[in-house]
Amino acid sequence: MIPPERSALLTDLYALTMLQAYFEHGMIDTAVFEFFVRRLPPGRNFLLAAGLEQALEFLETLRFSDAELEWVRGSGKFSRELADQLARFRFQGDVHAMPEGTVFFANEPILRITAPMPQAQFVECRLINILHLQTLIASKAARSVLAAPGKLLVDFGLRRAHGAEAGLMAARAAYIAGFAGSSNVLASALFGIPAFGTMAHSFIEAYDDEAAAFEGFARTHPQNTTLLIDTYDTEAAAHKVVALAHKLRSSGIAVRAVRIDSGDLGAHAKAVRAILDAGGWREIRIFASGSLDEYALRDLIARGAPIDGFGVGTHLDTSSDAPFLDCAYKLQEYAGRARRKRSIGKATWPGRKQVFRRYDNAISSADILTLETDAQEGEALIKPVMRAGKRLAAAESLENIRARAAEQLARLPAELRSLHDAPPYPVTAAPALRALAEAVDARR
Amino acid sequence: MIPPERSALLTDLYALTMLQAYFEHGMIDTAVFEFFVRRLPPGRNFLLAAGLEQALEFLETLRFSDAELEWVRGSGKFSRELADQLARFRFQGDVHAMPEGTVFFANEPILRITAPMPQAQFVECRLINILHLQTLIASKAARSVLAAPGKLLVDFGLRRAHGAEAGLMAARAAYIAGFAGSSNVLASALFGIPAFGTMAHSFIEAYDDEAAAFEGFARTHPQNTTLLIDTYDTEAAAHKVVALAHKLRSSGIAVRAVRIDSGDLGAHAKAVRAILDAGGWREIRIFASGSLDEYALRDLIARGAPIDGFGVGTHLDTSSDAPFLDCAYKLQEYAGRARRKRSIGKATWPGRKQVFRRYDNAISSADILTLETDAQEGEALIKPVMRAGKRLAAAESLENIRARAAEQLARLPAELRSLHDAPPYPVTAAPALRALAEAVDARR
Repeated sequence: MIPPERSALLTDLYALTMLQAYFEHGMIDTAVFEFFVRRLPPGRNFLLAAGLEQALEFLETLRFSDAELEWVRGSGKFSRELADQLARFRFQGDVHAMPEGTVFFANEPILRITAPMPQAQFVECRLINILHLQTLIASKAARSVLAAPGKLLVDFGLRRAHGAEAGLMAARAAYIAGFAGSSNVLASALFGIPAFGTMAHSFIEAYDDEAAAFEGFARTHPQNTTLLIDTYDTEAAAHKVVALAHKLRSSGIAVRAVRIDSGDLGAHAKAVRAILDAGGWREIRIFASGSLDEYALRDLIARGAPIDGFGVGTHLDTSSDAPFLDCAYKLQEYAGRARRKRSIGKATWPGRKQVFRRYDNAISSADILTLETDAQEGEALIKPVMRAGKRLAAAESLENIRARAAEQLARLPAELRSLHDAPPYPVTAAPALRALAEAVDARR
Repeated sequence: MIPPERSALLTDLYALTMLQAYFEHGMIDTAVFEFFVRRLPPGRNFLLAAGLEQALEFLETLRFSDAELEWVRGSGKFSRELADQLARFRFQGDVHAMPEGTVFFANEPILRITAPMPQAQFVECRLINILHLQTLIASKAARSVLAAPGKLLVDFGLRRAHGAEAGLMAARAAYIAGFAGSSNVLASALFGIPAFGTMAHSFIEAYDDEAAAFEGFARTHPQNTTLLIDTYDTEAAAHKVVALAHKLRSSGIAVRAVRIDSGDLGAHAKAVRAILDAGGWREIRIFASGSLDEYALRDLIARGAPIDGFGVGTHLDTSSDAPFLDCAYKLQEYAGRARRKRSIGKATWPGRKQVFRRYDNAISSADILTLETDAQEGEALIKPVMRAGKRLAAAESLENIRARAAEQLARLPAELRSLHDAPPYPVTAAPALRALAEAVDARR
């Protein structure tokens, strides 16, 4: 079997049962689906789109391997014909999307699929899985970026991310949002994201003497010497660093930073800063980690803690205060007719949509949600990215995406940049869209 | 590059920098690390161990591919020698663990690694990543199992799980905890977990007529007919099902169930049950889904909602009320001497440990945490599973693990089986362990 993130079987059973029904009943007309978030989680004032690159990769490479077809044939759940149809199955549709790094709000589609119904329906589950994860984490990471301007922020969350792909994609999403890098080596190898790291407590503990552990590490890594000082007594360790830094200077080795990972980070940082400064080491930076999130960063900075950089781990990689988005991938049109779901609390806007963003002195002032055909004033956020299963351009560079996210965050109204609930950003459904919704309802 | 869950580079940068330091300084004596959870999340009274099988697979197959070694050589971060050492790098240590499906509590190790320091240290990040995810989800799933005895529970969470591996392993963990199966096809193909599914709202919407959609689906899947009835008007759709079921009976097709996915599930279920019963269809089951978790299940059952099965999705696969565990992988011994970390709030028990569980009338009554060498009354929960890098037995069957979990849950004291915080289960550190901790502290 091929790995889970590449397997066509990484989907809900109903994707296959519906596929068989669509084929048997000849329901292969063009369908239009859109992916959007129904409402923002509490405390979130905006979201940051991410994951489009992996979504396009999925659509481009989707196919059933021989082993997977064998499973489909042997499962006893499907018709004989289905496996043969799956053997030829490819995604050949169109994709429109907001570029990664775009700020967006509730009910604004960030991706639209236009394809024969079996294709458009089949990709639902994995598309949601891909876009949800990175958008969730990029949106969370942006909050730390806004809370700690000018600080070095590093993703430390791999170990408690929900699996391998979650750890890898959290590093990517955090980098898009403005983090300086990640501890994750694979994210560096695959995406060129800067890798950061220090040492583990067990490294210190394995030595009988803490100062010997510091010196051993510094001599092995003279270019990258950040010393972890909270294993036993943080302030005592800071004094050892002062002495060691003088000793290492004669070998041409500079201690770059110390890291504090437990206790009252603000109080320890102040004490350690004083010890380092008194020892003549103003240039040694202080890096802090340990159960941090955007609220802790804001509070440490407000208290004037002399911390230069932060490792943000578990709370970032699990988006702990909002570990999911209420997102959906919904049918908007089939066989040329607009459709909408009217389930209680889950009603959707029908049709192929566009979002126009208006600015006031370069700050976003309002979004208009309307039909693609209803041109409005403002910047159109949704663009064509794939036609007939082929990309319209090469993958966008991560640096480009990151620059876009920075610009988008800079253009957010000030109140939306805070960590608490602000009055919602104005998103208005245009008359043309409202009229279509009423027409669809009247048809039933 | 190989897929993330198989890549040796899926680790923190410090794993590689420390490895180089250990090699350079000849620190290759035997190290002992243990994985445990420091404290239970709020509302959790116990945890369920899961993920050992994937942890052992990781240890057995860990190696650096040529492409990965190339990256290490070209990164400029490491010595020339390191890549050559990594080319030969294998895990050749011992593993002791609690079997999957074992109930455990705070500070009780569920896995111990005994290996040369570079090996034992290097595997930290991915081992935590693997054990954390499945233990988190199995522990969450067990709460739904306890809250809804006798109900059919199905994992529906893939789309909002945090990536591919999270979705796959959540299905496995939920099945271990007692779920009947999952919507996830890959979990069925890889692990033999029963797959369940119905249809999407978009399937209904693509038809101009809801009854035609039901009939089309039923004729394609006469063996597996669960009809989704909440797209427009749930009760109106239930009447259509009554009529359709009579019509289909003449073709030998039986409608097995209806599914309700929105609104007040309890109220809709009562109305739908009455409509089905009045129509002569007492045997058609009612299946409910939509933002469910263990609390919603408990409340629906308490209200007497006539629901036979539940799809539990997002809240399960993200463990939404506790999306991470405060877990750690810590050095307990190096070169024959016990070690412990004393960082504020993160102090650990030193040494190689065992957990003895005592029972009172077949119900767990107390756990004793002590040294491996300090035999105590009770059942020893930690067992050898790998020696010198080789498994001591073939992979345990999922059915075995699932049976163990069911037995373990049945032996929990009644108050720990509730959904709210109970007085903590008694876990006592034995005198031998306390004495060792004092001796380690006195040494400094």
